[in-house]
Amino acid sequence: MNLEILPIHGLPKIQPEDDLIAMLGDCGEIQPFDILVVTQKIISKAENQLVEIDPNDPLSHKPLVERESVRILRRRGELIISETKHGFVCANAGIDLSNVEKGQAALLPEDSDRSAQRLRDGLKGRYGLEVAIIISDTFGRPWRRGLTDVAIGSAGITPILDLRGEPDALGREMQVTEVALVDELASAAELVMGKSEGIPVAIVRGGDPNWFGEGSVRKDLLRDPKDDLFR
Amino acid sequence: MNLEILPIHGLPKIQPEDDLIAMLGDCGEIQPFDILVVTQKIISKAENQLVEIDPNDPLSHKPLVERESVRILRRRGELIISETKHGFVCANAGIDLSNVEKGQAALLPEDSDRSAQRLRDGLKGRYGLEVAIIISDTFGRPWRRGLTDVAIGSAGITPILDLRGEPDALGREMQVTEVALVDELASAAELVMGKSEGIPVAIVRGGDPNWFGEGSVRKDLLRDPKDDLFR
Repeated sequence: MNLEILPIHGLPKIQPEDDLIAMLGDCGEIQPFDILVVTQKIISKAENQLVEIDPNDPLSHKPLVERESVRILRRRGELIISETKHGFVCANAGIDLSNVEKGQAALLPEDSDRSAQRLRDGLKGRYGLEVAIIISDTFGRPWRRGLTDVAIGSAGITPILDLRGEPDALGREMQVTEVALVDELASAAELVMGKSEGIPVAIVRGGDPNWFGEGSVRKDLLRDPKDDLFR
Repeated sequence: MNLEILPIHGLPKIQPEDDLIAMLGDCGEIQPFDILVVTQKIISKAENQLVEIDPNDPLSHKPLVERESVRILRRRGELIISETKHGFVCANAGIDLSNVEKGQAALLPEDSDRSAQRLRDGLKGRYGLEVAIIISDTFGRPWRRGLTDVAIGSAGITPILDLRGEPDALGREMQVTEVALVDELASAAELVMGKSEGIPVAIVRGGDPNWFGEGSVRKDLLRDPKDDLFR
């Protein structure tokens, strides 16, 4: 299996209420069984998850962080690591000030799995394009420096590949059993997006047919707080 | 920029003292400026990081976990999350029982950055192939279910892309500034390896020339414990 990771160039700048389905359906780049990785930023913009903040106060988004959070895990200086109302553990509740206009902050989509499903249904219904959708965002990690893109919503793809019971290459049952497929795909797509280039959508082409299926990030990928050793 | 992710098929089963440089140099698949992602397992085998364990005791590798660790972060039942002597925070000190013979456990390489450097130098010196090398392993994460591949060693590639000071697509300075490039590449490569298929090396082709450079996972990517909020 060979994979291609392809940026979609030339998409127009997204505004609130824009029709993302039409933009993607008409771009001419998408083929059936592509996996489309779409950055959270353009979903938040299209769904008008933008909030006015004081452009002259670099901390004016901080009350939003508390409002969007259900549990604070750590604070250090201005940094807050919290569990958001959507269930993600991340910095600053995923609220983003880059790639939005000065004086605005972009909140996470209300329900990124639903946003992904809508996009998938629209591309299928209006364009006959059967694709999987991943909504991605850029999160930090404990223990390791730097950020990677992960999935915050998905549709038409199995979030976790469960390999339990399959033999390893030597015929023994495998120790590693659950691969976070949608997170690996989000990271792969980020490689061609380039933070400064404004590429909001990338295509992963050539994926295993077994990857396509049901499930959602919220239900399948987020760890239940009671099973979590670091919350 | 388009990327290709290509598995290398048909590599022989790796044994202790095998010459990985020759195996890769002779496989006929590698081009200059490829990024080779090599799973930890074959490095550990080639470097003879194998330890005999009692094949009839499923917990016989546990004393090894404590020996390979410098700090225990969490315990639950048989699961130990620790900081290894190499500086990684992971489950069971990265000791692996799958894809090794029954009665054996594979420890992590002593110094995966050095292993990567050796492979890079050998392919350049003996075959004239200028490539980057990433050694990958499969780690869990807090807060999110499933595992992803990350980098535990690298050579010839910048582990973290530092975008500080660069403008975003709207000309404002970017909030997201440090991308964990080698981790995203390790995850991308895992997608074509397939845990049960025994593909131990994948090629990422078409990478940005700016990615190639100096640095190591240990020095650049591992978070200093004193900066860490979850240790």
